[in-house]
Amino acid sequence: MPELRKDPITGRWVIIATDRAKRPTDFIRQPVPPPAAVFCPFDPGNERKTPPEVLAFRNSGGRDEPGWRVRVVPNKFPVLGIEGELNRQGEGMYDKMNGIGAHEIIIEGPDHAKTMVEMPEKQIEEVLWAFRERVNDLKKDQRFRYILLFKNHGEAAGASLEHPHSQLIALPVIPKRVKEEVDAARLFYDLKERCIFCDIIRQETASGVRMVTETDRFTVLAPYAPRFPFETWILPKQHESHFENAGAATLENLAWVLRTTLRKIDKVLERPAFNYIIHSAPVQEGTLPHYHWHVEIIPKLTKVAGFEWGTGFYINPTPPEESAKFLREAGLG
Amino acid sequence: MPELRKDPITGRWVIIATDRAKRPTDFIRQPVPPPAAVFCPFDPGNERKTPPEVLAFRNSGGRDEPGWRVRVVPNKFPVLGIEGELNRQGEGMYDKMNGIGAHEIIIEGPDHAKTMVEMPEKQIEEVLWAFRERVNDLKKDQRFRYILLFKNHGEAAGASLEHPHSQLIALPVIPKRVKEEVDAARLFYDLKERCIFCDIIRQETASGVRMVTETDRFTVLAPYAPRFPFETWILPKQHESHFENAGAATLENLAWVLRTTLRKIDKVLERPAFNYIIHSAPVQEGTLPHYHWHVEIIPKLTKVAGFEWGTGFYINPTPPEESAKFLREAGLG
Repeated sequence: MPELRKDPITGRWVIIATDRAKRPTDFIRQPVPPPAAVFCPFDPGNERKTPPEVLAFRNSGGRDEPGWRVRVVPNKFPVLGIEGELNRQGEGMYDKMNGIGAHEIIIEGPDHAKTMVEMPEKQIEEVLWAFRERVNDLKKDQRFRYILLFKNHGEAAGASLEHPHSQLIALPVIPKRVKEEVDAARLFYDLKERCIFCDIIRQETASGVRMVTETDRFTVLAPYAPRFPFETWILPKQHESHFENAGAATLENLAWVLRTTLRKIDKVLERPAFNYIIHSAPVQEGTLPHYHWHVEIIPKLTKVAGFEWGTGFYINPTPPEESAKFLREAGLG
Repeated sequence: MPELRKDPITGRWVIIATDRAKRPTDFIRQPVPPPAAVFCPFDPGNERKTPPEVLAFRNSGGRDEPGWRVRVVPNKFPVLGIEGELNRQGEGMYDKMNGIGAHEIIIEGPDHAKTMVEMPEKQIEEVLWAFRERVNDLKKDQRFRYILLFKNHGEAAGASLEHPHSQLIALPVIPKRVKEEVDAARLFYDLKERCIFCDIIRQETASGVRMVTETDRFTVLAPYAPRFPFETWILPKQHESHFENAGAATLENLAWVLRTTLRKIDKVLERPAFNYIIHSAPVQEGTLPHYHWHVEIIPKLTKVAGFEWGTGFYINPTPPEESAKFLREAGLG
């Protein structure tokens, strides 16, 4: 008998197919191919092919020269424009505004072929520092109400360039899904005077069945009602609403946790395409007692049944207890 | 300058890329290949390979024999089970219930190779009658609170079998996206004493820029803030909350409208994969003054940027004014 489970935060019901559960080898896997030797605007030496950098951590060289370890540039083809006024206006019953925002690329390293799974921990830590620094810089612009940090890895997950990179989009509005999550967490807090994510960490740590790994600072788990097989969340144990407030020790530990989790996923699912998204509180809000930043990792394993977009209704063929067990037991030898 | 537009119903903001707008030929198109001559459980003569039929419109033959024009069978691999109690229960802070529901396949015709685009209008009308009849039968079961009717056409849109078919899933819960839509429409009605969908039809008919086609009973349009390029909605002009209340003249007209719209999409986008979803009010509710059933058609043209799932944030490279113009002007010769 399949189970219907409710996500405690968003209230979304998900079908978990417990009988005909899919194991990692049951998915039609299309491993992300090793990067090809093609011309790449993100490679060292091609710095003039991107817009001028807004941040770089360097061993040598000047601005827009080789010698960098991590480099952040505006997207050459941004989905939003940085200059201008929002110019909010109506169009009959409809509402619109100018597409003002920032769209940046975090180039995670000079090596075209070394994905985040293969990078040393120190390099991932620098990528996280770059995330933090860019958010703290951009949030000074009062037009921006939300800043998305995410990665598309592999063509199936929406990546159009192979060179390891993440993306940042700063928005003048709060995306619907974020607003839902923050509002629902506030409601829970109003009822219980507790953060719902802190409660989840406590229950999952006690039960253990959906735990993947933990450190003194982070809990890695499969959520109770995941939309996708092998969906995995990384949550800081200490309550904090904004990713960009993370201190040095937290970023250092997160680098280890992110690398370890991605390596486990890479091993168990054989180099799948994936997305990760950093869920963090709206940037113009002060510290929130009810919201808890975290990272959601979604391997791209299933064909998109497009009706899921239309209905918000998800069917997940792998119970999170099983995905967590596979990841927990994956040795990284 | 791109535009941020707000969907008036759900409140979702969408980026519409107006500068670098994509025309139909700009998409990497993977036309759905013509059906292959493989063994198919939905072909006439193979009726014993499916569970026993629950409905058929026939020229000849008895139950589970050839001679049918449209045939409805339970899915052999259902995502939900029809037998048993819901057994709602908690698991610490979480909520779950048994996965009770119905999952049926509407086989749209005996011809393996004739897609809905190629079918005669009369046959589509019979498919719509089968939809209606199955919903009216299943809604008698008080366990079911929502019934989804949808089609996945082409592998890219999630179809696993080529034979033309639609699907029905009856659920003991109301999917999140449906609940949001119904709740938001109720809020609008409370404020204005008008149905928001009726208002949309009025404004779109007056402006014309997003209109695709209309008949005396239906309006076909591109919505103001579509998530996907060439997203197209079919709305009945006369207010009605439940699809399953549609009368004979409405279904007859809808068959023409659905066929014409799918043929236009098929021509302009060169046989794309697509989904359609019938959005209708929760089945156990009486007639609602604030909700308006309609069909949403989503061609599958863009690579999935998986972060859209995580954020509810969509970037659409084709303004609806352009997609509507392409479809409006597509001659069907």
